[in-house]
Amino acid sequence: MTLNLFQHYSKIQEIHPLVHHITNTVTINDCANATLALGGRPVMADSPKETAEMAKNASSLVINIGTLTEDAILAMKEAGRSANHHGVPVIFDPVGIGATAFRKETGFDLLDAIHPSIICGNMSEMKTLAGLESKSRGVDSGDSMDDADRLAKELAKKYETVMAITGPIDVVSDGERTVKLKNGHERLADVTGTGCMTNSLIATYAGAGNTPFESAILGILTMGICGEKANEWSSKVNEGIGTFKVRLFDAFSLLSEEDFSRSVIEYV
Amino acid sequence: MTLNLFQHYSKIQEIHPLVHHITNTVTINDCANATLALGGRPVMADSPKETAEMAKNASSLVINIGTLTEDAILAMKEAGRSANHHGVPVIFDPVGIGATAFRKETGFDLLDAIHPSIICGNMSEMKTLAGLESKSRGVDSGDSMDDADRLAKELAKKYETVMAITGPIDVVSDGERTVKLKNGHERLADVTGTGCMTNSLIATYAGAGNTPFESAILGILTMGICGEKANEWSSKVNEGIGTFKVRLFDAFSLLSEEDFSRSVIEYV
Amino acid sequence: MTLNLFQHYSKIQEIHPLVHHITNTVTINDCANATLALGGRPVMADSPKETAEMAKNASSLVINIGTLTEDAILAMKEAGRSANHHGVPVIFDPVGIGATAFRKETGFDLLDAIHPSIICGNMSEMKTLAGLESKSRGVDSGDSMDDADRLAKELAKKYETVMAITGPIDVVSDGERTVKLKNGHERLADVTGTGCMTNSLIATYAGAGNTPFESAILGILTMGICGEKANEWSSKVNEGIGTFKVRLFDAFSLLSEEDFSRSVIEYV
Repeated sequence: MTLNLFQHYSKIQEIHPLVHHITNTVTINDCANATLALGGRPVMADSPKETAEMAKNASSLVINIGTLTEDAILAMKEAGRSANHHGVPVIFDPVGIGATAFRKETGFDLLDAIHPSIICGNMSEMKTLAGLESKSRGVDSGDSMDDADRLAKELAKKYETVMAITGPIDVVSDGERTVKLKNGHERLADVTGTGCMTNSLIATYAGAGNTPFESAILGILTMGICGEKANEWSSKVNEGIGTFKVRLFDAFSLLSEEDFSRSVIEYV
Repeated sequence: MTLNLFQHYSKIQEIHPLVHHITNTVTINDCANATLALGGRPVMADSPKETAEMAKNASSLVINIGTLTEDAILAMKEAGRSANHHGVPVIFDPVGIGATAFRKETGFDLLDAIHPSIICGNMSEMKTLAGLESKSRGVDSGDSMDDADRLAKELAKKYETVMAITGPIDVVSDGERTVKLKNGHERLADVTGTGCMTNSLIATYAGAGNTPFESAILGILTMGICGEKANEWSSKVNEGIGTFKVRLFDAFSLLSEEDFSRSVIEYV
Repeated sequence: MTLNLFQHYSKIQEIHPLVHHITNTVTINDCANATLALGGRPVMADSPKETAEMAKNASSLVINIGTLTEDAILAMKEAGRSANHHGVPVIFDPVGIGATAFRKETGFDLLDAIHPSIICGNMSEMKTLAGLESKSRGVDSGDSMDDADRLAKELAKKYETVMAITGPIDVVSDGERTVKLKNGHERLADVTGTGCMTNSLIATYAGAGNTPFESAILGILTMGICGEKANEWSSKVNEGIGTFKVRLFDAFSLLSEEDFSRSVIEYV
């Protein structure tokens, strides 16, 4: 597989895909702005009375379980089924799925009701999905990335989906092909919601007609490359995490063909 | 009509109006900060058990239907009726009212229950309010601004309110007087919530005792002028949409008499 | 009492405490990022079906009544009781408790059900807690700080907790010891949520094993010192409240031993 990364990115600028999110209240604004900065059009409608209709008309759908109400769960099911029925790709972010019994039950229940094209989360979340014991702390991963490529491949087969595990090195597998992605910067972990935003970026690529496997790779690479650039642009004296976050959005909005040449992709 | 724009702005600094918002979870933080930056005091209470009391004590009330729960709808009705009863101006933002059947029904239902002093939205939203077919995509407008001035005038008469249509050129009408406002910058469309924040600015002017017609003009001009300044202040190499957004809030907080001389107002 | 402030801060960097928040939708993102910037790990789960379990596993718990739904109130009670039972320190932020009858009733009801280790709010909120008439405007204080030290001491005894009153000069009392803290900058009042974020900082200190009295002092000092630094870092021409807020987060993430020498603590 040879990816012409910039070409995949350019599709977003032609189509401006409508990316429907049903997501948490913590990072919802950042997810909308990340989608916009990349060239998508976010819509965050979350009433169960309208999400089926909204998802049907969307280019892609993000379901993120970061914060959960009864209505949000219902809205996710309605939207997910509608998206599945109408061929709209669904991106599922199992935020903190191992953190509580309720979150685990809800996450698996959603996966019974909905078929995602892509599932993207951290190592602890993926271990929970695999039925393994995880060391999650709240919504953060506490697990080592050993065997992440094998786990991604297994889960991709089990869920018949593209599986993406984010961490110091990211892994994407569709069950047949598996890649490791080596871009990024450790400061990304010091901003809340970079995981959520990665799912928004993936969904923006998917909504522009890229395949799930391409979209997962591209979304994760975009976050990694922009993290590197944001770090370079916020490394003067007295520049901390506030400036880094601002510069991350600058980077999202200023992607160029040259930037994609930073990509470090290893085929496993 | 001659507007002494800075004088209208100065009233905010004397009174520091309390601007009650019942609004969406996407841009709620930005709306609060925009209100504060202009000199208002935001309060975002949204429980139906308290919004009537809060609205009664507020200087103005914003109702924004960007995200909707059962409780929020009830809270909006309670607050809106209380504001109407106590003479508190209501500013209504019909976010994406044409995007789903539920949103449309809820929007019209609210307009039956509440009389807003000002309605401010984009062209697609206004077409839906007029019973015309709109080309909305999610919460964005897909419609041309042709005839915006005629439409604003008609709707102002129909709803007995001040009607503001935002877009590349903005239009405000009270049914008798109609103006076109030509400030702004295209980057404003790349930040989520600039429409919502415009309603917060309008409400801050209205809460300071300016008339609805003046307040709509002033709020929209303030967003437009600050957008222009933010663009000037974020046009160095590598400065993108993250920096632009930060500078927009800088501009809100640094308005001067001279800034208002940038205003381009055309009386239709 | 001699506080080695930097030593207390360093505990956070060793432990990276998990700080569970059940908080409002306005400032939830800023609270998570403030916690992260200081070295904590935020988790914002707010479903009543999971908050007892989440709080049990957390290092500390913030309960903030800024926006209230039926579910959130139930979630707060579940989490608070669980935290009390498992010895997890609870930090209570009574946002706007005097602003409406519902808010007052809910606030007192929560204080009946839960025993907080620390209560931190502004003067109007504290007067309401003391059963005195307050001049609150929405969620802002309208009351003078006269007698704040006496009030803090009384309330600390009444509620058997550490009481912190924030304002131009902050006061912390455990009923026996009372201190005045004189750091800070007036621009902090022009950013929404600096009060909420102060509670997040306090909770991050408390989650790292500092005592409630130490944690309240340290959290408030951290906000004050970072406010001063943010002001210094955003005082160039055309830098307004947007830049100030960004630099505040920079300051949170760049605390050094030297910074703590700015502390102005007066033992009453």
